[in-house]
Amino acid sequence: MSRYWSDIVQHLTPYVPGEQPPLVNPVKLNANENPYPPSPRVVEAIRRELGDSGETLRLYPDSTARKLRETVAAHHGISADQVFVGNGSDEVLAHAFQALLKHDTPILFPDITYSFYPTYARLYDVAYQTVPVDEAFAIRVDDYLGPNGGVLIANPNAPTGRALPLSEIERLVAGNPESVVVVDEAYVDFGAQSAVSLIAKYANLLIVQTVSKARSLAGMRVGLAFGDATLIDALNRVKDSFNSYPLDRLAQAAAQAAYEDDAWFRASCAKVIASRERLSAGLAELGFGVVPSATNFVLATHPAHDAGQLATRLREREIFVRHFKLPRIDAYLRITVGTDAQCDALLDALRTYVG
Amino acid sequence: MSRYWSDIVQHLTPYVPGEQPPLVNPVKLNANENPYPPSPRVVEAIRRELGDSGETLRLYPDSTARKLRETVAAHHGISADQVFVGNGSDEVLAHAFQALLKHDTPILFPDITYSFYPTYARLYDVAYQTVPVDEAFAIRVDDYLGPNGGVLIANPNAPTGRALPLSEIERLVAGNPESVVVVDEAYVDFGAQSAVSLIAKYANLLIVQTVSKARSLAGMRVGLAFGDATLIDALNRVKDSFNSYPLDRLAQAAAQAAYEDDAWFRASCAKVIASRERLSAGLAELGFGVVPSATNFVLATHPAHDAGQLATRLREREIFVRHFKLPRIDAYLRITVGTDAQCDALLDALRTYVG
Repeated sequence: MSRYWSDIVQHLTPYVPGEQPPLVNPVKLNANENPYPPSPRVVEAIRRELGDSGETLRLYPDSTARKLRETVAAHHGISADQVFVGNGSDEVLAHAFQALLKHDTPILFPDITYSFYPTYARLYDVAYQTVPVDEAFAIRVDDYLGPNGGVLIANPNAPTGRALPLSEIERLVAGNPESVVVVDEAYVDFGAQSAVSLIAKYANLLIVQTVSKARSLAGMRVGLAFGDATLIDALNRVKDSFNSYPLDRLAQAAAQAAYEDDAWFRASCAKVIASRERLSAGLAELGFGVVPSATNFVLATHPAHDAGQLATRLREREIFVRHFKLPRIDAYLRITVGTDAQCDALLDALRTYVG
Repeated sequence: MSRYWSDIVQHLTPYVPGEQPPLVNPVKLNANENPYPPSPRVVEAIRRELGDSGETLRLYPDSTARKLRETVAAHHGISADQVFVGNGSDEVLAHAFQALLKHDTPILFPDITYSFYPTYARLYDVAYQTVPVDEAFAIRVDDYLGPNGGVLIANPNAPTGRALPLSEIERLVAGNPESVVVVDEAYVDFGAQSAVSLIAKYANLLIVQTVSKARSLAGMRVGLAFGDATLIDALNRVKDSFNSYPLDRLAQAAAQAAYEDDAWFRASCAKVIASRERLSAGLAELGFGVVPSATNFVLATHPAHDAGQLATRLREREIFVRHFKLPRIDAYLRITVGTDAQCDALLDALRTYVG
């Protein structure tokens, strides 16, 4: 604390991201990163923008990321003015809190979800209420149909991995005509249904996506939002009052190329999904309870072993998973789906503790 | 406007950046970009991080940008906990408004300065008063020694190009022990004195810099702040409540390499300074009044010609300069210092209008 700090700084609870261990070759299953590299076209596109001498790097990037937005719009069958891009979906979500979720009535989000949401709420002084997920960690749409200043859910949800079908998302959006419903689809490509098809029908729906997960570009920081042009306009007004150029030249080129290689994207998702089912079965064999997942991670608990202790022992073998010391999920490990070899290394280690 | 927008969105006045014309080879003197490419070491560092397959891009970057901060700290003879990095100096300034400049008393900044400052103030609901620069566009330190919630000046100032000596900056910082003084040094390397040497002595001084200008990396979006660790801590608390990973892997590698090639940086600055003096003399010959500049741009006015009309006629020849329709400076053009060839193209065109 310091007399120089603004009041708000005293009240912040910064988000703590998954550790990036400084090791040569850790089994890194703690940050929901993709185990496969991005499309070769991404590497080509970055090389092309870089050129021999990096000549274009002296120039500001396109502040509107027009080409990237047009590519993404074509991919989803929407128009470029229904697409917003930002420096990772975390920045996009932050702008959504400031631009669309700050009203007199509290917003609603689940008690178990991405732990950055309450952090944003404190940063922008947005009132919120958390709504408990049910005992199987499912979101109940009926709980979100009362008065609210906005609704924010992740679908599939994190760290539970559970997804709602599109019909339930539509019921949530249709049931809240007076407020904005933000659906965070960071993990949607690993087995859930996207709500992009609904944005033409509902002016209150904002969808947030990322290239960090299914498109293997966590290192390049590109997030997206899709919605009615009026919602996108609000995000752009905040963005242009904050930072005209959130995406550098190489990030724009990389994300565009990632959207242009649909075959690579689909193959990568299919491999992760297959490994997830294999990993879930392996964990069940060891006696773990595994929450059914539509994401690139699983949430698993063992009836006879403390989750925090298991995480610590795995860490001693340079195997990194995530354990949240939070109510209702502190008996669980959140395990990112790696390659089959990484999953086997994890299962082998767990077998020595719980077998 | 929309019922879905937060109140704040209605009151924003987004910043309008310099145009990026979609032309093959414009004479682009409108965004204070460096006419020379970045160091070859920057290109090497990006290629090294990219590797053959872009394998590391699937992983999140270092959220603390430790290596970059250590490199910059060593360059300036300070410690890494006195260094903050963000996604361009615009993001760094935005965080400074939220973390350090929002208090009950209005902050002070000059009436003629970077036009993003009032935009930030509106975004974060920070009260401010503008303080007139004198008739020669100089900042008078005495005007900033009364009660205030913070002081923000650019040194050298933009778009005037005028600089204060270090002794005057120290008088400003020492005279405001109760509030934070932010000195935006985006252009400092082109001929002004940095105040970095003062941060060990004054806990209320925050310096903001960028790799966009003197280090030719506007396209990569990296900004920096230097100050007492307590001020840097406040910025980090806001950053970690907004976006854990503001700098992608290639941006971190690029900025670090730019700081490691001091010879390239010095040579690039020297060329720009020489061209600036040549351009200023050329403009004076054509009858322009030219404000003495310590930056990579000049502010110039012609007694017989409307500045807006001159800008329009230059644009017809694919020569881009900036004209601000703002009080006190609407008779001026702000002209970025290009290569000598670009400056000659500009002078030749102007000669046909004013000669």
